[in-house]
Amino acid sequence: MINIALFGAGVIGRVHAQNVACSDDARLSYIVDLNAKAAEELANSCGGNAGTDPAVVFGDPAVDAVIIGSSTATHADLVMAAARSGKAILCEKPIAEDLATARRCTEVVRDAGILAATGFNRRFDDSHKALREGVREGRVGRLDMLHLTSRSERLPALEKVPGSGGMLREKGTHHYDLARWIAGDEASEVYAMGACRIDPRLAELGDLDTAMITLRFAGGAYGHFDFSRQTNYGSDERIEAFGSGGMLESRRPQDGNLRYTSGRETVENGLHESWFTRFRDSYKAELAAFIEAIETGRSSLPSLEDGLAAQRIAEAVVQSLAQNRPVSMDEID
Amino acid sequence: MINIALFGAGVIGRVHAQNVACSDDARLSYIVDLNAKAAEELANSCGGNAGTDPAVVFGDPAVDAVIIGSSTATHADLVMAAARSGKAILCEKPIAEDLATARRCTEVVRDAGILAATGFNRRFDDSHKALREGVREGRVGRLDMLHLTSRSERLPALEKVPGSGGMLREKGTHHYDLARWIAGDEASEVYAMGACRIDPRLAELGDLDTAMITLRFAGGAYGHFDFSRQTNYGSDERIEAFGSGGMLESRRPQDGNLRYTSGRETVENGLHESWFTRFRDSYKAELAAFIEAIETGRSSLPSLEDGLAAQRIAEAVVQSLAQNRPVSMDEID
Amino acid sequence: MINIALFGAGVIGRVHAQNVACSDDARLSYIVDLNAKAAEELANSCGGNAGTDPAVVFGDPAVDAVIIGSSTATHADLVMAAARSGKAILCEKPIAEDLATARRCTEVVRDAGILAATGFNRRFDDSHKALREGVREGRVGRLDMLHLTSRSERLPALEKVPGSGGMLREKGTHHYDLARWIAGDEASEVYAMGACRIDPRLAELGDLDTAMITLRFAGGAYGHFDFSRQTNYGSDERIEAFGSGGMLESRRPQDGNLRYTSGRETVENGLHESWFTRFRDSYKAELAAFIEAIETGRSSLPSLEDGLAAQRIAEAVVQSLAQNRPVSMDEID
Amino acid sequence: MINIALFGAGVIGRVHAQNVACSDDARLSYIVDLNAKAAEELANSCGGNAGTDPAVVFGDPAVDAVIIGSSTATHADLVMAAARSGKAILCEKPIAEDLATARRCTEVVRDAGILAATGFNRRFDDSHKALREGVREGRVGRLDMLHLTSRSERLPALEKVPGSGGMLREKGTHHYDLARWIAGDEASEVYAMGACRIDPRLAELGDLDTAMITLRFAGGAYGHFDFSRQTNYGSDERIEAFGSGGMLESRRPQDGNLRYTSGRETVENGLHESWFTRFRDSYKAELAAFIEAIETGRSSLPSLEDGLAAQRIAEAVVQSLAQNRPVSMDEID
Repeated sequence: MINIALFGAGVIGRVHAQNVACSDDARLSYIVDLNAKAAEELANSCGGNAGTDPAVVFGDPAVDAVIIGSSTATHADLVMAAARSGKAILCEKPIAEDLATARRCTEVVRDAGILAATGFNRRFDDSHKALREGVREGRVGRLDMLHLTSRSERLPALEKVPGSGGMLREKGTHHYDLARWIAGDEASEVYAMGACRIDPRLAELGDLDTAMITLRFAGGAYGHFDFSRQTNYGSDERIEAFGSGGMLESRRPQDGNLRYTSGRETVENGLHESWFTRFRDSYKAELAAFIEAIETGRSSLPSLEDGLAAQRIAEAVVQSLAQNRPVSMDEID
Repeated sequence: MINIALFGAGVIGRVHAQNVACSDDARLSYIVDLNAKAAEELANSCGGNAGTDPAVVFGDPAVDAVIIGSSTATHADLVMAAARSGKAILCEKPIAEDLATARRCTEVVRDAGILAATGFNRRFDDSHKALREGVREGRVGRLDMLHLTSRSERLPALEKVPGSGGMLREKGTHHYDLARWIAGDEASEVYAMGACRIDPRLAELGDLDTAMITLRFAGGAYGHFDFSRQTNYGSDERIEAFGSGGMLESRRPQDGNLRYTSGRETVENGLHESWFTRFRDSYKAELAAFIEAIETGRSSLPSLEDGLAAQRIAEAVVQSLAQNRPVSMDEID
Repeated sequence: MINIALFGAGVIGRVHAQNVACSDDARLSYIVDLNAKAAEELANSCGGNAGTDPAVVFGDPAVDAVIIGSSTATHADLVMAAARSGKAILCEKPIAEDLATARRCTEVVRDAGILAATGFNRRFDDSHKALREGVREGRVGRLDMLHLTSRSERLPALEKVPGSGGMLREKGTHHYDLARWIAGDEASEVYAMGACRIDPRLAELGDLDTAMITLRFAGGAYGHFDFSRQTNYGSDERIEAFGSGGMLESRRPQDGNLRYTSGRETVENGLHESWFTRFRDSYKAELAAFIEAIETGRSSLPSLEDGLAAQRIAEAVVQSLAQNRPVSMDEID
Repeated sequence: MINIALFGAGVIGRVHAQNVACSDDARLSYIVDLNAKAAEELANSCGGNAGTDPAVVFGDPAVDAVIIGSSTATHADLVMAAARSGKAILCEKPIAEDLATARRCTEVVRDAGILAATGFNRRFDDSHKALREGVREGRVGRLDMLHLTSRSERLPALEKVPGSGGMLREKGTHHYDLARWIAGDEASEVYAMGACRIDPRLAELGDLDTAMITLRFAGGAYGHFDFSRQTNYGSDERIEAFGSGGMLESRRPQDGNLRYTSGRETVENGLHESWFTRFRDSYKAELAAFIEAIETGRSSLPSLEDGLAAQRIAEAVVQSLAQNRPVSMDEID
């Protein structure tokens, strides 16, 4: 039985807490949040001791692992403290607010020799995973193009925008990570177009809602990202990989199975409404992989280095947008 | 909070127990099974007092409702006892082993004035339900034909076959009920063909694995049932309703979303493997409807009369098969 | 260059005439129709000598083959005259108005040792053909069920109904033939339900517009036919073959490729409007096979015996409907 | 009856010749090609006088219109000569080898006041057209993104590459034109990535086989082009338009309708093999629109100005690729 401490009792913390509570192999030891009430409420339904002080966790040798789902500003310190106290780490992205600190985290973790993973849950989506396996097995032959579409069902709550890093980082890192992981290759250059087309209040907060980004891989393949923060038809995330041997697609799942045929049309219901119902299972699979990694010592999860690599791409994308020119990854520290 | 007593700690009992345990509006008071150990184990994980004696349930005024998921032979007695002690009833089909007893159950229930429902869970499948609503709202105009396909992913365990009533009753009643419910009409005649084509051991046990049945509705529409007990491609249940205004289909859901395009073909993964993952959610929706019916006094569930009607069709089907001729519903008591 | 004489300058005659005119391997020598004007008009656009007297055709040794697309009442005499004058024959179904005459035609043809084919054009539909090949190659393993759906886009012109033989023969024979051909097996018994639900004028003419038919194959598999003479959504013909090794479907083709995703629905245009656009190419493929058979002496076309077999099934179906009982093929002469 | 003279008896000339020959409203007066034999052969099967001298066409007052399908180098002179002799013009793209000449052509045509159209046949594809109409009618609301995929079934013949202008012009102009036409907006900037990944002999000829291009519309929407010159799965051309009101897709058509379900997969045949079978009908529709425009004096065809606009985008794309930077349309003459 793995003892897990959870930092953060917000939306994502709740997801992790419920998954740990349902797991046969792990239990919650602590739920830590600056908001004592939130921590207590979550502990009441999912187990664990509620608290506000991280130090208690790091001082308790019975804790095997931490899940860091607190606010971005707290990630780096928690990662480093966890590493130093020898706890395995599953940290929501980003690792840190800036690249230098993120890099330091990876170094501290490496020196500590502990298991640390970045929470790129989309890697654990069954269809995304099957697409990646197909590409790695050579089903598309030489990979030439990779398209990633990520369109959210609704705009983020405006109060969450400041401090989020903005769409190109927040939404972006998930997909830059998927691209690297699927292609098995590193980005060499990016070019970004982006604008605030849906809600001008996002522009006032310095953020965007619509973007199109291209990426060159070191091996010569091209990547393309299509981001929107609001559709009128639910959450729409898809991947297409094209190459000399064919095309693999991870398509949008359906929620219903009714089809109506009349006149000159067929109508299907069942559009998938929310990001959360789409990716709920991926968080469970992520936790299962984390637990397995702790037990076996062999990790199949995205590492902190993977988190750092996605953050570096995000910084290049942000710079490309600001300067309207392709930005080489060599320009990014 | 509704107090529910569960009869039967087998496969289907476990499904109900877990759903009650997860419900915010109900809790398990008792789990009763002749197998004391099975009752206890289930009570340990889902709550409730374990026992072997139904009388305790009927004597406890705190029990609001019973779910009858025990063996078929026990259904009728439990239904009548529950009715007499004023408990609401959700009874797995069939109500009784023979029509006369089933009819007596409906009478006892009617006299007692209690809520009683037959567990036709497929009515609570989202897509089946949407199809039915579409038909009732006139989207297919005058309904002319109704096709129901039910092909299981694997043969039943042979030890469960004796006493099951056979495929034409066991699998059949679910679909005869769907047909009546969707068409909003009664069967007037049936004709059945059936054989044991997959596993001769079923024939030795007097059962079938393959059948094709046609049905006339009183209003003139035609129904068609396609039953198989084993596919090599997972559970395949579908409905098609055709009429003057078009066609509605409740199609087979998909489990995965990978598509591979190469050469002259596209390949999709994601066939739905099991009946259970397909219909798991329908049991939850059924329980929610049962609880709502108890709370509001208005039932949207299939009644015991619906259960009886489906059983009568099953008897006509069995007779048609035996005599290889269309059998009128007037011939069935 | 094959010289072909065409009997019949009506709708189907026109299809054949145009196909011969476009063929590189055949040309029209004669177009014969009692309606001299119709024959002339067609000859003007497609070539050949127009006439009203079949005898001219049979007396001209330069004619290699005849296509019989005239009214049903004329088929048998033309078939026998063509056989006696040594012409290859492609005869629209049915061969004759009654089974005895149809059987005599097959005998005359056999004695003459000539090539004769029944015009079951659906065998030449690419997808139907691929389904049949798949079944014959064992892709569905042991064939258990075969479903044939045939729903027309609109009712036949009422003046064409008398003398047509009725829906169960006219539409039916195409599909009884497909069933035999796909299963590679003979019918042993049929059961039919049918009614006039769409237009009462058809009933006044002794015909139907809606039917559901089941069929037993000698080898034990089941067949099912779903016939309607009018949808509100275009021509709908499909086949599904199910067996121990899986399922093969010849699905309805699409005419357009626009998809609209909005709200909770996707809408696709592109329903195939007419029987004719669906099966146009099958007539071309049929003619090509006929020409190839003449040139090579090896026929892949449905024979007159196939035409007779489908007619026998039609008679059993008509009898089953009249008597509302399963009719064994042994009862049919 | 419109009298049409055709320049060019090559592949595309043959398509036009056959379409005119099949038209009820037009006939071929002349087929002109430097290769006298090619012109004669085509005239033999499709009608018209074969010749090698364009002057004969322009001197014949009976000629109403010309179709220019000869080599690119000849387009501009033929366009201007046709304009001056008052013939209606349908000219394959590009209008001229350079922008200055193309612009002069548009001026000469404008001064002559004649009807002139650029042969962007894809505008006449039913599904592309329906997508455009949907966008123009506001079905996707505010258009935010437009994706155009064009992947050919096989590499061009190497001997056709020199003088073709290269993939970014040759394939590109069709799709830049579609983008403008669908969006109802002009490009303001483009950025291109491209490489020779499939066949190095193309690189030796200064050409590419793989490219990804982004485009900004003046109104702020983004466009994206995905070009490949070879798939292993046939011709793959698709369009996706995304906006505030939903998504419209012109999807890849299917050639077959067989589906096989077995194990954990469904397999569909029917990938569309060739560009030509996909777009054959669009040439017929283009011709019909041309004839209608001549007859009514109102053109729905892409104008020479449309051809020029697409050529300007192509030049910006080529420049962007050479300099690896976004190129503003203002930089292009």
